[in-house]
Amino acid sequence: MSIRTRLIEYREGGLVFEGMLAWDDGIDGPRPGVLVAHTIRGRGEFEESKAKLLAKQGYAGFAIDVYGKESIGSDIEDCRAIMDTLRAERPVLQQRLLLALQTMRDQEEVDASRTAAIGYCFGGLCVLDIARTGEPLAGVISFHGLFDPPGNTEGNRIQARVLALHGWDDPLATPDQAVALGQELSSMGADWQLHCYGNVRHAFTNPSADASTGVTVYNKSADRRSWAAAQYFLSELFGS
Amino acid sequence: MSIRTRLIEYREGGLVFEGMLAWDDGIDGPRPGVLVAHTIRGRGEFEESKAKLLAKQGYAGFAIDVYGKESIGSDIEDCRAIMDTLRAERPVLQQRLLLALQTMRDQEEVDASRTAAIGYCFGGLCVLDIARTGEPLAGVISFHGLFDPPGNTEGNRIQARVLALHGWDDPLATPDQAVALGQELSSMGADWQLHCYGNVRHAFTNPSADASTGVTVYNKSADRRSWAAAQYFLSELFGS
Repeated sequence: MSIRTRLIEYREGGLVFEGMLAWDDGIDGPRPGVLVAHTIRGRGEFEESKAKLLAKQGYAGFAIDVYGKESIGSDIEDCRAIMDTLRAERPVLQQRLLLALQTMRDQEEVDASRTAAIGYCFGGLCVLDIARTGEPLAGVISFHGLFDPPGNTEGNRIQARVLALHGWDDPLATPDQAVALGQELSSMGADWQLHCYGNVRHAFTNPSADASTGVTVYNKSADRRSWAAAQYFLSELFGS
Repeated sequence: MSIRTRLIEYREGGLVFEGMLAWDDGIDGPRPGVLVAHTIRGRGEFEESKAKLLAKQGYAGFAIDVYGKESIGSDIEDCRAIMDTLRAERPVLQQRLLLALQTMRDQEEVDASRTAAIGYCFGGLCVLDIARTGEPLAGVISFHGLFDPPGNTEGNRIQARVLALHGWDDPLATPDQAVALGQELSSMGADWQLHCYGNVRHAFTNPSADASTGVTVYNKSADRRSWAAAQYFLSELFGS
């Protein structure tokens, strides 16, 4: 095994974005490509570690950027401002996501016909939005994602299989919102699954989550269970 | 591998019950024991096949009987009458379930300290009820189970880990009931998970389900996914 990485720039509307591709050079390419959408904090070590983990499992992992290269590493309040803008302008967000997906498909290490997307927190919303656009990709996985619908995708037919991995006590995605997500996904024809973890809050996969306010709390058990579910789902998608 | 089976009788309140134990004689015992609770139809080939499948995976599977040996093989209306009586008399049902569990623990092929229970449809309600009694077993798995609470277990502390595998469009267990189950399990301190499958109805694991009324419909994808989730859960419980 020989994990390699490369930074990749892509551009739109005067902004430059920067993603990181990770792949195992010991595998004859191209490999199924798995996009990794970032949390509120923008692309960072957390997402890059997931891309490398995917690379170790035989995929090409692409940790994307939807904030813009200049914003990578910004403090959380600046990140929140960008995120809030994108949550309010979902067509703009969707355009950036589809650009990132196309950028991943364009890489020689990636099999453009076999792609999926995973995302964390805000990134969970991002990958659900990719699915909602009707984009033909194999599947998307939301880890403690936000469920609010975008408002511009009614009537679309979801082609991606959807897996949402969800802490039942997540203050940012309530049981009512989980039920509404199910209704929305069914109405759009999706093959969907929602795995709910009892007594689990937001950001449960992140060991660095700040648990002081009770909103974001790491949960080792849910972290392991969700990753196992994700692995099974990817193997179902790609026969890997 | 050498799968063997044995019929086992147990008695209570003037009734004789008959379960079937399955184990791999090629494995040095005792093995973790997994009880299999039956559907509305009573113990039959479906449950026995699951017990044998568990045996192949290194467990001792015990397909139990809560209707009484005399009722095994009865037609569905007679079965429904017994089931309805037991759903209305949950303490009686729970007593029979705990007797079956104890009977499994008493077999020399079974490690009495490592036990779990799985169940289908009415059997899903049964294994949830075992957990609700506070019985110390490692875990329970409900496949398209019924969620109505028993009314006699409030205040108990659930010790078993709980996994409910659920068709979101199950007419016998609605989204409201799924949400209520989560609340109930959390209030009882359970480590619980609920995996919801979109566009999936009742009895999704049963290839013989009669789909004519749209209530019970086999779903190959949900069948595979739920069995994979069950295998991972059992390996988590028993380190197998």
